[in-house]
Amino acid sequence: MAAMKKILECVPNFSEGRDLEKIEKIIEPFRGRDGVKLLDYQSDKDHHRSVVTVVGEPQPLETAVIESMGVAIDIIDMRTHKGQHPRMGAIDVVPFIPVKDITMGEAIEVSRAIAQKAADTYNLPVFLYEKSATKKDRQNLAAIRKGQFEGMPEKIKQPQWAPDYGPAQIHPTAGVTAIGARMPLVAFNVNLDTPHLDIANQIARKVRHISGGLRYCKGIGIELKDRNIVQVSLNMTDYTQTALYRVFELIRIEAQRYGVNVIGSEIIGLVPMEALIDCAAYYLGLEDFTMAQVLEARIWE
Amino acid sequence: MAAMKKILECVPNFSEGRDLEKIEKIIEPFRGRDGVKLLDYQSDKDHHRSVVTVVGEPQPLETAVIESMGVAIDIIDMRTHKGQHPRMGAIDVVPFIPVKDITMGEAIEVSRAIAQKAADTYNLPVFLYEKSATKKDRQNLAAIRKGQFEGMPEKIKQPQWAPDYGPAQIHPTAGVTAIGARMPLVAFNVNLDTPHLDIANQIARKVRHISGGLRYCKGIGIELKDRNIVQVSLNMTDYTQTALYRVFELIRIEAQRYGVNVIGSEIIGLVPMEALIDCAAYYLGLEDFTMAQVLEARIWE
Repeated sequence: MAAMKKILECVPNFSEGRDLEKIEKIIEPFRGRDGVKLLDYQSDKDHHRSVVTVVGEPQPLETAVIESMGVAIDIIDMRTHKGQHPRMGAIDVVPFIPVKDITMGEAIEVSRAIAQKAADTYNLPVFLYEKSATKKDRQNLAAIRKGQFEGMPEKIKQPQWAPDYGPAQIHPTAGVTAIGARMPLVAFNVNLDTPHLDIANQIARKVRHISGGLRYCKGIGIELKDRNIVQVSLNMTDYTQTALYRVFELIRIEAQRYGVNVIGSEIIGLVPMEALIDCAAYYLGLEDFTMAQVLEARIWE
Repeated sequence: MAAMKKILECVPNFSEGRDLEKIEKIIEPFRGRDGVKLLDYQSDKDHHRSVVTVVGEPQPLETAVIESMGVAIDIIDMRTHKGQHPRMGAIDVVPFIPVKDITMGEAIEVSRAIAQKAADTYNLPVFLYEKSATKKDRQNLAAIRKGQFEGMPEKIKQPQWAPDYGPAQIHPTAGVTAIGARMPLVAFNVNLDTPHLDIANQIARKVRHISGGLRYCKGIGIELKDRNIVQVSLNMTDYTQTALYRVFELIRIEAQRYGVNVIGSEIIGLVPMEALIDCAAYYLGLEDFTMAQVLEARIWE
């Protein structure tokens, strides 16, 4: 019934997590704008960082993101910024995620257009990362961000770290920004009935990609001291390829070696419905089920 | 992002599941009409039945439903209809389900207006059922349908089974129809690795409400002759109260008595996303999960 629209999600991370008035100013461009919807924002004082979640059609979303970046550049001074989370700029990172009727290719195009415009408008060096990266060693945000704001003036002068857009020197107060397209990320934690962190860490090593596990899975062990248990804390970087139920069942199986049980799990933040419906389809053994059978998916398609 | 509109779902069940040309004719009135969207239709040869799912704004939806009923009355002859699913008319049942920005009260009004119009236009006896029922013993479709098409000529003459609209005699070829407003219904079938229909029937009796089972669950045994297996065919009449995983696990447990295994399941037609996400949340043991964490639920709220 609704007109066909392309919907893109954007989750910009700003290096301001303490001054609520400043945060409101940065978010203001996402409010009350046709074709853009602010879904969520969370600020963390220790990290001194705010994470905003917004969805929209590509064109109005682009306008809103560029405006918001301008506000952040005006009011954040990285020279005095201290926080626990690694960061390299006032607008640290701006990921774009395809949500509806939009391909990854289109999301990459949008990310590049915004990177170009931000660089031109604000004289800001921008690195393309993840699916938008122009070189393999820029896919990983951590590699780009290594050295952080303080190390960036020297790093950016090296030819291999020349920015994709903007000058080869940092913005004096806003540093540099990474912009790119990526798959939706699901933060999924699995709780174990043991207080031993080493068990969670050993299981994390078994299931995560880097040490022999599932392709689109990152994981570490975490202590939940108030509950006297541990959890395997996971970032599922492509649930369409590595389903949540698969890592959940693997963790259950690995935990058996230690006489440990999985006692629950949690999703942090937002999750695409398909990531959970895939799990229901697995556990119920649904035959020939497709997302086209989901009422809401069909009404709004 | 989409304009706010009242959306009603309609899921008419037609007693034709084999002749694709006839099925297409019955569905035609739901295609290419402003304010109406055909979401799905599925035909079952064993049941000899087609289930159509359409959403729309009340007025255009009413026009399309009346037209489609006329086509079905023209081309379906119940005197020669044989199928495994109980049925009493060419248009067996026409439920209306509130989906968005519409109350159950409004859905009841629409169902009554359509019942009146169908009776007047086609000289068809119509029973109001579920939330639209005028008497308590007509809330349950199975009670109205008892005796099926073959028993209806006698049943309808009894004063307590006089139809709500139309004549107190069946339409000679189209029988009778039930129309009413109800909660979303999920058609959920669970397959067993046995050819014995009596096992499926015995399990159905254990899990369905009427014989001691779950409150919002109806069920019967069905043979899938082409696969040489049977299934417990369920109508879940309020998934918000009786979750799908609960009946699935009960069937698994009952099947163990017979040395029989659940080998899969299927959803017929459409399912609200929440019905499946509830299952994922159960099997993953999700703690503190809410539908507000589902990306799509937030986008379309």
